[in-house]
Amino acid sequence: MNAPANPPFAYPGLDRVFHERARLGIVTSLAGRADGLSFTELKQLCGVTDGNLNRHLQVLEEAGHVSLAKQTEGRRPQTRIRLTEAGRASFAAYLAELEQVLVEARFAAAQAKGQPA
Amino acid sequence: MNAPANPPFAYPGLDRVFHERARLGIVTSLAGRADGLSFTELKQLCGVTDGNLNRHLQVLEEAGHVSLAKQTEGRRPQTRIRLTEAGRASFAAYLAELEQVLVEARFAAAQAKGQPA
Repeated sequence: MNAPANPPFAYPGLDRVFHERARLGIVTSLAGRADGLSFTELKQLCGVTDGNLNRHLQVLEEAGHVSLAKQTEGRRPQTRIRLTEAGRASFAAYLAELEQVLVEARFAAAQAKGQPA
Repeated sequence: MNAPANPPFAYPGLDRVFHERARLGIVTSLAGRADGLSFTELKQLCGVTDGNLNRHLQVLEEAGHVSLAKQTEGRRPQTRIRLTEAGRASFAAYLAELEQVLVEARFAAAQAKGQPA
């Protein structure tokens, strides 16, 4: 038997760029801030190291979901990170997909309760 | 400034064993079946290769979330995979956490709409 064309539990819409746990935290932090967050704020909100945050921001920037801008606040240069309009729209689509997966998982778990093991 | 003790967007309860996309599909497939699924059925439902499925099942088995049993159906030996009771309970906890993350993300996205960019 061949694999079906659309495996029902493959979840291709659950974009791994957003789904990865640390990036989900990063994007959710940014989603609430139209004016963005500084690198330092983002690091503290998400509990990640500089190296990890840099790596995840690179993935998000390459996908076009965030923009990074160098700014000077007082004497210190700062990187300001914002969710792009495209990133915001893609994240909304991801969240809709995630909700669907959650509904299915809840339904599956409830269904099994009535079955013989 | 040090990192806060509980970064609000770190999501430690979003257990990576369940959160990884392929495993989320595998566990959701199994959650609906009290009597488990065969390796072949699971592979087809989730659209994964033999190698990938083996690797993910190993992670789930090591965490105690699934049990694997060799069975003979007709002439062919088959592996039957079931979600353990502990795995079912842990998955329910993961889904509750996931729902919380989804609510927060939705709230954040809605909040930003009223803010100046």
